[in-house]
Amino acid sequence: MADPIDFWFDFSSPYGYMMAERIDTLAAKHGREVKWRPFLLGAVFKHTGGQPLPSQPMKGPYSKHDLARSARFLGLPFTMPEAFPVSTHQACRVFYWLESRNPRLAHEFAIGVFHAYFVDGRDISQMDVLEGVAGKLDIAPEAVAGATADDAVKAHLREVCEVAIASGVFGSPFVVIDGEPFWGVDRLPQIERWLEQGGF
Amino acid sequence: MADPIDFWFDFSSPYGYMMAERIDTLAAKHGREVKWRPFLLGAVFKHTGGQPLPSQPMKGPYSKHDLARSARFLGLPFTMPEAFPVSTHQACRVFYWLESRNPRLAHEFAIGVFHAYFVDGRDISQMDVLEGVAGKLDIAPEAVAGATADDAVKAHLREVCEVAIASGVFGSPFVVIDGEPFWGVDRLPQIERWLEQGGF
Repeated sequence: MADPIDFWFDFSSPYGYMMAERIDTLAAKHGREVKWRPFLLGAVFKHTGGQPLPSQPMKGPYSKHDLARSARFLGLPFTMPEAFPVSTHQACRVFYWLESRNPRLAHEFAIGVFHAYFVDGRDISQMDVLEGVAGKLDIAPEAVAGATADDAVKAHLREVCEVAIASGVFGSPFVVIDGEPFWGVDRLPQIERWLEQGGF
Repeated sequence: MADPIDFWFDFSSPYGYMMAERIDTLAAKHGREVKWRPFLLGAVFKHTGGQPLPSQPMKGPYSKHDLARSARFLGLPFTMPEAFPVSTHQACRVFYWLESRNPRLAHEFAIGVFHAYFVDGRDISQMDVLEGVAGKLDIAPEAVAGATADDAVKAHLREVCEVAIASGVFGSPFVVIDGEPFWGVDRLPQIERWLEQGGF
């Protein structure tokens, strides 16, 4: 069996949300699994000098427009959250804590976080919002709070961000198939052809 | 008849070259003309603080890889020139000088410049290279030299760059259809749907 596809993303990345809505189905069509790897884009930006889209002159206003249009193009519900971008280290910590116990549940939690942020417009940096997402999956709020305060989980997230940087991951979404890197949801057609033909 | 589609690009932009190879045919399929508008990305970067791809950490190495793959994906010949990026104000001046006399010839010259740079790997900042491209279109080298030294042409190019900035053009290629902006050759599928449906 081929290795899983790596899907790197920041929970605060709207194009990451769009990729999250498409990558599993696309991969499954070609018999591949996907390893979801949330990381902190802020940690990478410290390394590269990158900036969040809204703070970039000219590109900021364009990207707001492009995000809404790209979501319509892909047929996805999309709300631009009022709080954007937000800190996502708590969401990441809950994800990795869950993943060490129940990877399937971690995956469902990640989808729930993306929907809370980019469909319902909730601020996913807030613990009550994360607890709400977790609650729908029958995860107790105490467990969520525990995960975000867990030193081993914190260390693991730092390590994930270091691996991201070492792997050349500088943006979100970032998909790696057998060593081949694809940045951006607009690379979906190339990803599809790569999976169909085993490279091109 | 609908207004022409605006196609903004820098002659030193590889994704701009790829768009140049596709946009005319796509537009013609939908009964639209394309106005080619070369500008100086460097002038915009002065305004936005943007940087050429190769100087961006992590994104630079990725983009070299992505460029070659994107060209294969689109079925286009592509060479990454050794001198990259290069100054393109001379090429722009010749283009606009020609455009004021013979728009069809200016268009052919632009295609020739892109091919010289991204297919043959020639340094298009050099006058002899531009004269070679022009020569194939029966334009005398003296005319090329005259165009690049012409004060009115210089002023016109400065004005074009100001219009680009005022129009929100921050990258290359940048396509505007009836006020709708599309940045990047990876927006071709969205451009196609936009032309098919008159928006979406």
